[in-house]
Amino acid sequence: MKQIQIVEVGLRDGLQNEKSMIGVPERVQSVLELLAAGLTRIELGAYVHPKRVPQMAGTLEVVNEVLAKTQHRKGFSVLIPNDRGYDDFLRAPVPEIAIFASATEKFSQKNINCSIEESFERFQVVVRRAKKDKIKVRGYLSMCFGCPYEGEVDPKKVVGLVQRLLRLGCYEVSIGDTIGVASPDGVIRLIRLLKKAKIPMNRIAGHFHDTRGTALANIYAAYREGIHIFDTSLGGLGGCPYAPGASGNVSTEDVVYMFQRSGLMKKIDLQKLIDLNKKMSVWLGKELPSKVGKAGTWPSHQHLDPSSSA
Amino acid sequence: MKQIQIVEVGLRDGLQNEKSMIGVPERVQSVLELLAAGLTRIELGAYVHPKRVPQMAGTLEVVNEVLAKTQHRKGFSVLIPNDRGYDDFLRAPVPEIAIFASATEKFSQKNINCSIEESFERFQVVVRRAKKDKIKVRGYLSMCFGCPYEGEVDPKKVVGLVQRLLRLGCYEVSIGDTIGVASPDGVIRLIRLLKKAKIPMNRIAGHFHDTRGTALANIYAAYREGIHIFDTSLGGLGGCPYAPGASGNVSTEDVVYMFQRSGLMKKIDLQKLIDLNKKMSVWLGKELPSKVGKAGTWPSHQHLDPSSSA
Repeated sequence: MKQIQIVEVGLRDGLQNEKSMIGVPERVQSVLELLAAGLTRIELGAYVHPKRVPQMAGTLEVVNEVLAKTQHRKGFSVLIPNDRGYDDFLRAPVPEIAIFASATEKFSQKNINCSIEESFERFQVVVRRAKKDKIKVRGYLSMCFGCPYEGEVDPKKVVGLVQRLLRLGCYEVSIGDTIGVASPDGVIRLIRLLKKAKIPMNRIAGHFHDTRGTALANIYAAYREGIHIFDTSLGGLGGCPYAPGASGNVSTEDVVYMFQRSGLMKKIDLQKLIDLNKKMSVWLGKELPSKVGKAGTWPSHQHLDPSSSA
Repeated sequence: MKQIQIVEVGLRDGLQNEKSMIGVPERVQSVLELLAAGLTRIELGAYVHPKRVPQMAGTLEVVNEVLAKTQHRKGFSVLIPNDRGYDDFLRAPVPEIAIFASATEKFSQKNINCSIEESFERFQVVVRRAKKDKIKVRGYLSMCFGCPYEGEVDPKKVVGLVQRLLRLGCYEVSIGDTIGVASPDGVIRLIRLLKKAKIPMNRIAGHFHDTRGTALANIYAAYREGIHIFDTSLGGLGGCPYAPGASGNVSTEDVVYMFQRSGLMKKIDLQKLIDLNKKMSVWLGKELPSKVGKAGTWPSHQHLDPSSSA
């Protein structure tokens, strides 16, 4: 069985959907502790407009400080919306950038103020520069299983856009259930269409939100269909702008717990992730949704004494 | 594909693990609203000692009032720990009782103050009476995937106890991940052993707690292996006595959402369950863990207008 890969997106997709903000030192410390726990693929931030996404302000400082404090490089990435973002990126380059497209027109307009077609024109410029600089490009495709504006999304349309992102030069495309509406059967249906289109499974990642509690079931179903790369967020950082009070990103701890207990992921120190969860919770002034964060890992080193009252 | 059956255990397994208690009228109203939402298998309470489980006091009144207010009968059940509980049960009989055994000695001692062997002797008396009275008997087997006192549990031991409960006269045995430590692969391993032992899958139910976020993944994995009956709890009522602050039972709304969106369960009115969740939340003075309860169902009847700010 292929070992599971985690792409930690809490410091970007997570934090950008939190009301409270944390500073550069806390973000740097988080990266270092994620590395210490054994995670290797980490999104460090985004070069987006600080007025639009104030939580990502200071990304350049975060990247610079992280690069000063660790020898780790491979697996670090930063989100880039456009050509100007790529200029920022070049001031502290890491081996990888991520770009993001939408599977629905209405969300594309709402999220990045342009049509899907126009967004691909923008990406082309960025990807061309990245290729020249030998920077890997990862693609996010959002709203693959449902859109708050268009409702159900045709999986064939998703397959077409995944192919387009791969042709554009993305080495990996992350298919997103951005509002957490997918069910395992829908996930299987889309993955089978991707396979039918001859898209290799090692170029696809799953990005599932837990808004309706189905993320781990969706991830497990995707894994059974051949996907082994998943985006997760420490503590389940990040909410859902379309369902106030609901959770967003699936929690790293819960996903790691599920796969480690199945013997499919061995090198992650879950306790270190839980410790970082607790710190993050203090920094943000809120409890994070991760269930493993609350219940702890298992098996515990010491079992309870039956004579004690529980 | 076989349609999914839900056994609603929130008013028993859920409430008995909540610190706050709700009165008989609220419990009666809950049963009626669960029926109105389309659920048919509902555990009404337990005839246990009110000093040991104060939340279940008034079960006789709940049963009597429910029976006075609806013609529904089939699918109602009450938990019975022993012969004396069966006497209580006879004062307001419903078509089904449930008994509960443990897969580990230490939990059996701790939970019901006797060895597994002794517990089966007690059950024998109850089951003999139930058979005579034409009352169906359902068996719970707890700690099938891990025990807070013994750690890992041998699945072969679980298979032996399931067989024993079936031989004793249980028409269905619910295998419990009582402390929420199972992973999908462990679930699959146990179910395959059950099948190897020639136990028919329609006599097995899955009872998964969401303490570490894996319940829906475990349920989905069990479903793929042939299980189609699952115990769930409205709103995710009930915590975990071994992990304070953690969640316990998997939420009915989340399980119904997952299977309805997959077209495997059509007759449940999810919105009515969410409405009851909100009432229960007021009665108990706490937010319930169900994610669908917070985020709402999908597809929503009306999609958002992209020109609005979300």
